[in-house]
Amino acid sequence: MRIIVDAYGGDNAPLEIIKGAALAVEEYGFDILLTGKEKEIRALAEQHGISLNHIDIADAPDVIGMNDEPKSVLKEHKDCSMAEGLRRLAAGEGDAFVSAGSTGALIMGATFLVKRIKGVSRAALAPLMPSTDGPFMLIDSGANVDCRPEMLLQFAHMGSLYMSRVLGGGKRVSVGLLNVGTEEHKGGDLQHAAYALLKESGLNFAGNVEARDLPSHAADVVVADGFSGNVALKMMEGTADVLMGFLKGIFMTNALTKLAYLLVKPHMRGLKKMMDTSETGGAPLLGVQKPVIKAHGNSKAPAVKNAIRVAAEFSRSGVIEGIAAAVKPAAGEKTEPAAAE
Amino acid sequence: MRIIVDAYGGDNAPLEIIKGAALAVEEYGFDILLTGKEKEIRALAEQHGISLNHIDIADAPDVIGMNDEPKSVLKEHKDCSMAEGLRRLAAGEGDAFVSAGSTGALIMGATFLVKRIKGVSRAALAPLMPSTDGPFMLIDSGANVDCRPEMLLQFAHMGSLYMSRVLGGGKRVSVGLLNVGTEEHKGGDLQHAAYALLKESGLNFAGNVEARDLPSHAADVVVADGFSGNVALKMMEGTADVLMGFLKGIFMTNALTKLAYLLVKPHMRGLKKMMDTSETGGAPLLGVQKPVIKAHGNSKAPAVKNAIRVAAEFSRSGVIEGIAAAVKPAAGEKTEPAAAE
Repeated sequence: MRIIVDAYGGDNAPLEIIKGAALAVEEYGFDILLTGKEKEIRALAEQHGISLNHIDIADAPDVIGMNDEPKSVLKEHKDCSMAEGLRRLAAGEGDAFVSAGSTGALIMGATFLVKRIKGVSRAALAPLMPSTDGPFMLIDSGANVDCRPEMLLQFAHMGSLYMSRVLGGGKRVSVGLLNVGTEEHKGGDLQHAAYALLKESGLNFAGNVEARDLPSHAADVVVADGFSGNVALKMMEGTADVLMGFLKGIFMTNALTKLAYLLVKPHMRGLKKMMDTSETGGAPLLGVQKPVIKAHGNSKAPAVKNAIRVAAEFSRSGVIEGIAAAVKPAAGEKTEPAAAE
Repeated sequence: MRIIVDAYGGDNAPLEIIKGAALAVEEYGFDILLTGKEKEIRALAEQHGISLNHIDIADAPDVIGMNDEPKSVLKEHKDCSMAEGLRRLAAGEGDAFVSAGSTGALIMGATFLVKRIKGVSRAALAPLMPSTDGPFMLIDSGANVDCRPEMLLQFAHMGSLYMSRVLGGGKRVSVGLLNVGTEEHKGGDLQHAAYALLKESGLNFAGNVEARDLPSHAADVVVADGFSGNVALKMMEGTADVLMGFLKGIFMTNALTKLAYLLVKPHMRGLKKMMDTSETGGAPLLGVQKPVIKAHGNSKAPAVKNAIRVAAEFSRSGVIEGIAAAVKPAAGEKTEPAAAE
């Protein structure tokens, strides 16, 4: 197993990425191909005593930033570490690719450099989100702000395959449609049409699900257009952050509240583990021809290591072959080109 | 001040509604007109020792349920307590109307029985949501799943007037557009067009806001289409419920954690107060010709009392006159009929 890793993506690049890659070599025995400024990487590794055993480096002089236009990954920044990694993936020099860099650029780059699976009209970003009953997948969570019903049906197929094969041990997973109520008639034109398609899809369709019920695991796979999916994702993060911050402030008030914290601390582990996105190891980008994992922008070495593990599981799972078989285009249907954001 | 109250709306109707009305009479000196089954209301009041001083009753034999079609408030259930209250409001028998019943039915009923303000194309549901820096308004949060850019502009005007006059003491409030990123180019066609309109609106437009930043008060008024607004609202509720439930479980684990709870309890008040939706007293329905307040479905007497207080503040504020002046239709523009859901 050889995983290609963008050494210059994310808030803590390149040092934490290099460390995470070394951890993955050590723990899982993978080979790694890092993309980025080779000299700098070698110097940092030496300086911090990080072993580069089983780690190759593909030199890439440029870096794409969070504020660069996504499409610049194909033009102005075509020599960046992310584009280099995607090209190497497309060329078969690794089994999967991990980046903690710009989400928009990664979607754009993967779509045009790795290319979509035949029959897939759009790639979707599909993070695993915390719930009281284990992670669920939210697909799409931001790659496609405007969606057609057929795209939501494809998201459902892709998400089901991933959740079943990578996390579910092959079990039949449930699919819910994000909506403003659970009754069949709820929502707008997009939801009505998607509901009808999902009902006839042969998937384990659980009907409409409300955002309120997502944190208590309304379904294993929640299908949404990228706009409302992104709102759901970020509202969960924002609400959890504010509440946990508030709570931290309460525990830090005085000596008595600090004592209280010590008393509950052993029991907080479950809560922290549930909310810890670094455990789940990033979001797969589903619909492209090779496994691509978007690690969280704030990933540190352990999160990078986990993302590399998940990338390997994705590669081994056969999900991509499954998607190719599931979404064969209807006779005469053309795969439309992706919009340049 | 005379407030009309739907005695048969919500999970705890009619008893908690009657109690809440009596509390409002006692605390604020308002007159109340309850709508609903008169005999039953009188019997309950007697049985529970609730004074009906300053409370009149308009008999309404029927009740509209949460699972009834919203439009049935105009037909099959036209004799329900909600429809009766809306008709009395339209006829000038009270200054404002409060219901904790079906949101869909209330929007439908208010639109057709009380009617929209001239020039307003759609009424919007605009709850006040908790944040670390006081409540913010989310408009629309579910009345209109499909929106045009001009509707979002009207929501911004209506929400700004309400927040400024009812909660802000006349101060200039900020308006944000719910989007998937803060940069101007983010989002789909709806957001691009709405952004352009808001920029030229003369309102205090703060640009795009992400769901992640709403709980830390990204803006005083957050404008959204009713679909993604509803997702944001319910995701905040669901995440907060799960986290608070988890925390409660931790504190209840054993004698030591119960002791810990006692130590932090005095400091939890701020958190509880921030998250307590019964304090804010329900969501105004903006865009109709008279003040209508949707109280939370789970309202008990204190929440009903607060909703009645907010209804009175809404009535006194001049917001409706302000909206009528602000949204004068452009020459030749027609107000379109509301869709039957």
